[in-house]
Amino acid sequence: MNEKIKWLRDKISRMDMQGMIVSNPVNIRYLIGVEAEGVLLLTRKENIYITDSRYIEKVNKMLTIDDEIIVTNITDVSKDDYENFFMFCENVGFEENYLTYAKYKKYKQQYRINNFVETENLIEKQRMIKDETEIEKIKKACSITDDCFTYLKSYIKKGMTEKQIAKEIENFFIQNGAEGVAFDTIVASGENSSMPHAVPTDRKIMSGDIITIDFGCKYKGYCSDMTRTIFIDFVQDYIKPVYDLVLKNQNLTLKEYYDGANVRILSKMVDNDFKLNHFNLIHALGHGVGLETHEEPIISSRRGDFLLRENMVVTDEPGIYISGKFGVRIEDTVLITKKGAQTLTNSSKDYIIINTNN
Amino acid sequence: MNEKIKWLRDKISRMDMQGMIVSNPVNIRYLIGVEAEGVLLLTRKENIYITDSRYIEKVNKMLTIDDEIIVTNITDVSKDDYENFFMFCENVGFEENYLTYAKYKKYKQQYRINNFVETENLIEKQRMIKDETEIEKIKKACSITDDCFTYLKSYIKKGMTEKQIAKEIENFFIQNGAEGVAFDTIVASGENSSMPHAVPTDRKIMSGDIITIDFGCKYKGYCSDMTRTIFIDFVQDYIKPVYDLVLKNQNLTLKEYYDGANVRILSKMVDNDFKLNHFNLIHALGHGVGLETHEEPIISSRRGDFLLRENMVVTDEPGIYISGKFGVRIEDTVLITKKGAQTLTNSSKDYIIINTNN
Repeated sequence: MNEKIKWLRDKISRMDMQGMIVSNPVNIRYLIGVEAEGVLLLTRKENIYITDSRYIEKVNKMLTIDDEIIVTNITDVSKDDYENFFMFCENVGFEENYLTYAKYKKYKQQYRINNFVETENLIEKQRMIKDETEIEKIKKACSITDDCFTYLKSYIKKGMTEKQIAKEIENFFIQNGAEGVAFDTIVASGENSSMPHAVPTDRKIMSGDIITIDFGCKYKGYCSDMTRTIFIDFVQDYIKPVYDLVLKNQNLTLKEYYDGANVRILSKMVDNDFKLNHFNLIHALGHGVGLETHEEPIISSRRGDFLLRENMVVTDEPGIYISGKFGVRIEDTVLITKKGAQTLTNSSKDYIIINTNN
Repeated sequence: MNEKIKWLRDKISRMDMQGMIVSNPVNIRYLIGVEAEGVLLLTRKENIYITDSRYIEKVNKMLTIDDEIIVTNITDVSKDDYENFFMFCENVGFEENYLTYAKYKKYKQQYRINNFVETENLIEKQRMIKDETEIEKIKKACSITDDCFTYLKSYIKKGMTEKQIAKEIENFFIQNGAEGVAFDTIVASGENSSMPHAVPTDRKIMSGDIITIDFGCKYKGYCSDMTRTIFIDFVQDYIKPVYDLVLKNQNLTLKEYYDGANVRILSKMVDNDFKLNHFNLIHALGHGVGLETHEEPIISSRRGDFLLRENMVVTDEPGIYISGKFGVRIEDTVLITKKGAQTLTNSSKDYIIINTNN
């Protein structure tokens, strides 16, 4: 049987569940490598993936006999089948953070489940710790992202729009072996940079601009995430202290990212240093990266104590935003090791000044 | 007050609800035009949009005083505020098809809600009927899609990969005023066309190929959706009867798409004609198109009786798939009027043969 399914069966059995319904498609992809619409059932003896005729052929191509997964067309599942899947199961797990209230009610009735039990993100938590093949894929995604940044330094010119630069990033990714962007690229120039989640506009790049570029790609399903804040022709004097403060805290965080570090204390530390300088850390200091760009753990002082562990991949991305004026964010994707943090994105974080007068 | 919010307030009041929590971001965009992460509360007297600091500035730029929406940063909402929002509300509505089970439990407790009531897709149902400005946007998206198809007929050459063609479609959309693709473009050639949801591969286009292209763009938030099945150099004889059968049923459906038509009977009709020819209609005959590519109504014989209404925008997309061999799908986006169906995508549905020998 597929190793990850074996792990999950063992895990739920120790939680006194005799079955589980997995419905989060990212978790299904993690467990059995399948990208489709469907539901994965772990019954007492079998693993059953119920999908529909649009996907049957594709799914059968993806799975091998060793996976021990029975692929079923939803139209072939009778009322009796539903009622038999979890017969003699006292407790059946479900994903309370994914399943809608309507589906919860429907499943409970359709499958005749006695106790439908919350599983507290157990698969998402397992996904936090990456294995070797996962790390390799993330490394590759990060290296394509670094290459893209190198390319951007010679590509960006005065008069280009934010949209144009965002589009070029996507083209670069696809031409360099990635599947595409991992998330909507942020290219926020001038005063637009004060919005952490700015959408690229038709604003044209000018001399003296600050530009925040937050971008990442997908490689074999796995994501990268990097932000650099760069400058056109020169760095405005009033920006320097803010940039320096963000960079100082980004580097400080890197030093403190090791197996066993408490992320609540870490983000508190950055927030305190920002406050000393009359700023605030208005978003999370970081987040996990894997099959999703944003996944567990969320590195924030609001989430309570949580310890980083070896082979987690997380971001380190402090930022300061001055409403209507400008913003600075610097972000790396980082692998946690026994010895500390290993940055997977390695583009320079010194002032990057693009000289457009040549 | 914003007209759509006025409508919603009136609607829930007639359902004996004194408040509602709207959490589906597409519904929020429909109601107040805002694209961000947050929750919209309709309390007894106020409309409150709770978001976080990443979006506050952006949201404030989007809303005007006439909207009568109070924008609040989630960090400024105290425990007491939560408990006061729905004080004296006997029934508070929620979106059971969007809210997760975990959030349902959390909200019920956090807001101290007595009766948390399912609202049965009331906003999604309202979204089915498009107003004039919505129809104009969908028309524009469809016209860009038609233009793209015209362009593709001269662009596609032997030796190109499916991925390359899909990429060019996206580029065309962006260069011609669309925001981008409305959904992942399907370019499925040769035997790949037998999978209704094929993902573009590196397979190269050859003489004699059949290619299914399912594509659409977004214009000011609104989607288009069109499929054409085309041929390289010539049409294989064994494909013709299948193509003709699909096209016949696509045109038949168009004739039957009018205000008052029962979609269950319509899809049954197509399925019956397919069965007479030893095929099956394995997916829905169509679906609503608007802010989402796939939205209500779903046009399928499995959904029970449902009548089309004036100003619905839906697709008409029968398809036949022969496992491991090939598939044919033909799809238009269609506006339902009092007088019948008005196709918004108007590219030819005759055999489109791309001659690559020139």
